[in-house]
Amino acid sequence: MSPDRLSLTFAALADPTRRAILGRLSRGGASVTELAGPFDMSLPAISKHLGVLERSGLIARGRRAQWRPCRLKAKPMKEAVDWLEHYRRFWEQSFDRLDDYLRELQAKEKKQTRGKKDGHSKIC
Amino acid sequence: MSPDRLSLTFAALADPTRRAILGRLSRGGASVTELAGPFDMSLPAISKHLGVLERSGLIARGRRAQWRPCRLKAKPMKEAVDWLEHYRRFWEQSFDRLDDYLRELQAKEKKQTRGKKDGHSKIC
Repeated sequence: MSPDRLSLTFAALADPTRRAILGRLSRGGASVTELAGPFDMSLPAISKHLGVLERSGLIARGRRAQWRPCRLKAKPMKEAVDWLEHYRRFWEQSFDRLDDYLRELQAKEKKQTRGKKDGHSKIC
Repeated sequence: MSPDRLSLTFAALADPTRRAILGRLSRGGASVTELAGPFDMSLPAISKHLGVLERSGLIARGRRAQWRPCRLKAKPMKEAVDWLEHYRRFWEQSFDRLDDYLRELQAKEKKQTRGKKDGHSKIC
């Protein structure tokens, strides 16, 4: 079974070099040589990463023989965000809970400090 | 080098079974046996997927000896969305462009239909 589109997208994004390539392409199209420069990687290594990105539909490459400029195609990212958005209420909930916990902790601390002051236990 | 957190998250999401497990856990905590049921998978196969999800921080598992319920932890998803959001303008742009193109196409079609009508080339 060939991997589904969303799996291909997430797999392509699961590598810091590939994410950095996408970051570079967000500033404009670039050739393989231009992309290889900042990464201190061999051209075959970069080409392999570009192949993964191309198969996932995150980049497109020109068809001109020698110079095949790459450009960003962000549509698969939209699909990834749409999938992730179904879980928004869960991460918002967990932050709310953390927020509640921190507030509770601060309230307790204040109470304790006040208690110490009232009991003249403060060191002067 | 151990993979960075974001790479772990994307890699964990790059599998339809793991995404389905997260979907099941979004409806409430579940044991490994409960999770294995709908997938028609062996317990070791499900356990392997749960291991990947746990290492990425997308689920947490209880520590009670026999029954180790799994629950969803959505925080890594927020980080993934935050990263993807940097590219929003690109996918919105590409949809805008598609929209422009379709509008242009419709306008051309209308013009052609009108032209044919004016030239009495319509078949009655």
